[in-house]
Amino acid sequence: MYIFYDRVMPYDTDYQGIAHYASYYRFVTDALSSFAEKKLSKIMAKYSNLWFVIVESHAAYKKPLYLGNKIKIVIEPEVKERKIITNFKIFRGKELTTTGYLAQKIIDRNVWHSVEIPDDIKNILIGR
Amino acid sequence: MYIFYDRVMPYDTDYQGIAHYASYYRFVTDALSSFAEKKLSKIMAKYSNLWFVIVESHAAYKKPLYLGNKIKIVIEPEVKERKIITNFKIFRGKELTTTGYLAQKIIDRNVWHSVEIPDDIKNILIGR
Amino acid sequence: MYIFYDRVMPYDTDYQGIAHYASYYRFVTDALSSFAEKKLSKIMAKYSNLWFVIVESHAAYKKPLYLGNKIKIVIEPEVKERKIITNFKIFRGKELTTTGYLAQKIIDRNVWHSVEIPDDIKNILIGR
Amino acid sequence: MYIFYDRVMPYDTDYQGIAHYASYYRFVTDALSSFAEKKLSKIMAKYSNLWFVIVESHAAYKKPLYLGNKIKIVIEPEVKERKIITNFKIFRGKELTTTGYLAQKIIDRNVWHSVEIPDDIKNILIGR
Repeated sequence: MYIFYDRVMPYDTDYQGIAHYASYYRFVTDALSSFAEKKLSKIMAKYSNLWFVIVESHAAYKKPLYLGNKIKIVIEPEVKERKIITNFKIFRGKELTTTGYLAQKIIDRNVWHSVEIPDDIKNILIGR
Repeated sequence: MYIFYDRVMPYDTDYQGIAHYASYYRFVTDALSSFAEKKLSKIMAKYSNLWFVIVESHAAYKKPLYLGNKIKIVIEPEVKERKIITNFKIFRGKELTTTGYLAQKIIDRNVWHSVEIPDDIKNILIGR
Repeated sequence: MYIFYDRVMPYDTDYQGIAHYASYYRFVTDALSSFAEKKLSKIMAKYSNLWFVIVESHAAYKKPLYLGNKIKIVIEPEVKERKIITNFKIFRGKELTTTGYLAQKIIDRNVWHSVEIPDDIKNILIGR
Repeated sequence: MYIFYDRVMPYDTDYQGIAHYASYYRFVTDALSSFAEKKLSKIMAKYSNLWFVIVESHAAYKKPLYLGNKIKIVIEPEVKERKIITNFKIFRGKELTTTGYLAQKIIDRNVWHSVEIPDDIKNILIGR
């Protein structure tokens, strides 16, 4: 489990006065990037040919988010064979507003083909 | 079924050289907006208090899309009680690159609460 | 002079109900990409090491644009030594809503350094 | 003068491997929003009919920014009659990468017309 704090910005909102549905993926990307920097950057330096690519995205919007809302994004990765499923929950205070997940594979960017997830990466992802 | 043609723009791509996963929702929004303008705008004029809001989004990325790729987005809405599920497929030529759906509800924007989908809107959505 | 037609989409708008100031650069990018595809793509095939990069951007917002507005973007490139200045005007019907320009250089992407603008590219840019 | 720290995210970059020119306005919006929240939110509560709208934007890109770059945005607002000019500089470490400004007016959102900038807002903007 990894926690990241973010904020609904003007460019996240649309004419309905609430965060546009695709903006939630910005919040999750921010959380995932922060996780990657804090936990994975050291190990990824030795795997310079490997890239995480997103193969699936899903979000369920329960409550609208408004400009300036301070949000907490909780991400929880799990590993299923060659797939990394990162479940996410977005909270405003204690209120759960959004749930979903991103699925990723790791590819060798030179051949653009998915690889087995190396054990040391897997152990970090599942927080072992 | 409704077909819309779009193109992968510079701002859709990221450092991996392919369309960023959230950009696919831009393509689908473009298709949905075009559908709404062509098919729904007349009828929505009489429902000025009603707004479509997105309650769920899902995409499965099978093939990467590259800058300048010309794409065809095929959307197919279905209605399940108070939910509109718009299934989408994105093609590059004959190659299916992406599948997914958006789920929407119709809300009364004055009270921000979902309403029964009026029959005349429903009939247009399911192409009757 | 090159003309491109576009439309204000939900993701272009923000909580103020109008197009977000950075979205206008999306419209201009769309116009520029269309121009590049129609007029430059053939010639650029022989210059595969060359990239256009943006070195300056400017916009003056005279009138707000609203969701669904159909807009006309008129671009007019001029060449000043190693710089391409693309002036733009955005119209809604006959009403001028926005003016501005993008300045670009052409770089050799292998060394990431600007080059003289080849004469055949220059002639297309200034419409000769 | 107000300082804000940000980071180049995947969605900021494009196929050229560097931050897309319009993304720099995201960085500046983040800085401006943080300034508004810290310094202006209290006073704006009493001016609920007033909105800041952007009437001009300008950026000069001197050095490209790359994924993950940690950046410092320095903003310095000045007031000229009914206009607020917020000059900005973006640094990566000590290296100045970008300069520019946003010009804003304050409008009465009910009539969508610019107003004189109230003295108490002006004093905060110029840091008096």
